[in-house]
Amino acid sequence: MYPGNHRRTPQEVELKSHMYCKPGLWRGHSPNLIVIRWWQHQTYIGKDHKAAIQQWRSEGRAAVWLHVPILQSRFIAPAAALGFCFHHAEADSSTLTLWLGQGPSRLPGYATHQVGVAGAVFDESTRKILVVQDRNKLKNMWKFPGGLSEPGEDIGDTAVREVFEETGIRSEFRSLLSIRQQHSHPGAFGKSDMYIICRLKPRSFTIELCPHECLRCEWMDLTELAKAANATPVTSRAARLLLYGHREGFEKIDLTMDQLPAVYTGLFYKLYHRELPDSYKMMTGVD
Amino acid sequence: MYPGNHRRTPQEVELKSHMYCKPGLWRGHSPNLIVIRWWQHQTYIGKDHKAAIQQWRSEGRAAVWLHVPILQSRFIAPAAALGFCFHHAEADSSTLTLWLGQGPSRLPGYATHQVGVAGAVFDESTRKILVVQDRNKLKNMWKFPGGLSEPGEDIGDTAVREVFEETGIRSEFRSLLSIRQQHSHPGAFGKSDMYIICRLKPRSFTIELCPHECLRCEWMDLTELAKAANATPVTSRAARLLLYGHREGFEKIDLTMDQLPAVYTGLFYKLYHRELPDSYKMMTGVD
Repeated sequence: MYPGNHRRTPQEVELKSHMYCKPGLWRGHSPNLIVIRWWQHQTYIGKDHKAAIQQWRSEGRAAVWLHVPILQSRFIAPAAALGFCFHHAEADSSTLTLWLGQGPSRLPGYATHQVGVAGAVFDESTRKILVVQDRNKLKNMWKFPGGLSEPGEDIGDTAVREVFEETGIRSEFRSLLSIRQQHSHPGAFGKSDMYIICRLKPRSFTIELCPHECLRCEWMDLTELAKAANATPVTSRAARLLLYGHREGFEKIDLTMDQLPAVYTGLFYKLYHRELPDSYKMMTGVD
Repeated sequence: MYPGNHRRTPQEVELKSHMYCKPGLWRGHSPNLIVIRWWQHQTYIGKDHKAAIQQWRSEGRAAVWLHVPILQSRFIAPAAALGFCFHHAEADSSTLTLWLGQGPSRLPGYATHQVGVAGAVFDESTRKILVVQDRNKLKNMWKFPGGLSEPGEDIGDTAVREVFEETGIRSEFRSLLSIRQQHSHPGAFGKSDMYIICRLKPRSFTIELCPHECLRCEWMDLTELAKAANATPVTSRAARLLLYGHREGFEKIDLTMDQLPAVYTGLFYKLYHRELPDSYKMMTGVD
């Protein structure tokens, strides 16, 4: 079950909390939620709140959300003394929660994954693939150029951007090839990492290496990469997938992309899966 | 480029910052980084820090990381007045940063995605698939049971857990079918959402509906679901994929999973892609 169904979302909360809130005063139409938005001139945290929280708990309320602008952070420690903890914080505000319900908190957590994307830029006509060696950690290991998605950036756009930033090569998205999930990731502040390799088609061929990031960069024969001992395991695997796709058709290895409208938000999302034959897309003749 | 390469990671920072730190005193062996760990009895934020920051900037240092335990949050607002902002916060601590370098910050961001997983539990022998209708938002729309991954939980484990929690059906992971990326997600505190559908094999068949989450749950004929008007678009798409796979072989639609050791951390990760023929796995006879 996603938050926003039986769990409450912070969006709901924030929409309902644009009025000043004194404990117990504002109820909204979510009877299990209390929202406090902390204003500079409201300094009553402490004993009054302890009583209020006891009352809310006795009323069977589920949770309290507390939004604190960074310049009002002096209210955080007293709230923590009452049992609040950080839910998340970013830029100039923090959000704290206090779970009032039975058992462990059922409030939805915050983002759990960073997303990294690498671009496997493969030139079908020459069977060459673009590979780099990092300046630092993975020294002497061949890998595909790539890096972290910026907030709100689509997977394919990250791949194209990172390839360009590291190698100067322009390319375009073709498909998604593989997904790796790794937890407690050292480069993700202990969070999880989703690392996605995309197949890209080159639009330019002259390498302009970024000296801050890469030691080496070259167009390497795909078979050579698939057999190379000094390639990262994920790179070797993707090279073998590409070799298979190059010989027997990329439809064997690709997850293709469709853009679809989201039902409720009016936004679009991108969906990746194995290409469906037309008869299944239309659902004609498949009874 | 991933953080941990030319970008600095907070792990590096924290390892190097276990000593008390007065401005300008501790340098470690990362000459571009200053780390301050805030202790209760260190109350000197203010004018001294303003001067220190000016000096660090003139020395060409890149950034300052500031770790603040929740009970010491009174130090956050003065830090913000000096230009610090939240990088992230969770549970009982927050981390702030101040970028000192040229141009916009090049420090790595925090986690950007939540991961939701749905389980498409398909019984090949009867061609029935397990579907639910939500109690709230997606009322009257058929979909697969699913929900958010817990921190550190593998994709397939989320699918199996959520299916069991919502429907009482036990199942096991078979493959990954599709990935959807959606930004500014209402249920993700404005962050991005990665929604993954897994193919699961049922291990039990008696539905025990969770009444808090679901209105309806049934084993539905797969063709019926693929044609249903009242299924979410992603559910319809996955149903058609499954129909294709059921008729022509699941290897046509599956991303299968391998577990591999991570080079540096000693941990394992899971990698999903199209199944490779054995000759490509071994790289024999593929020259």
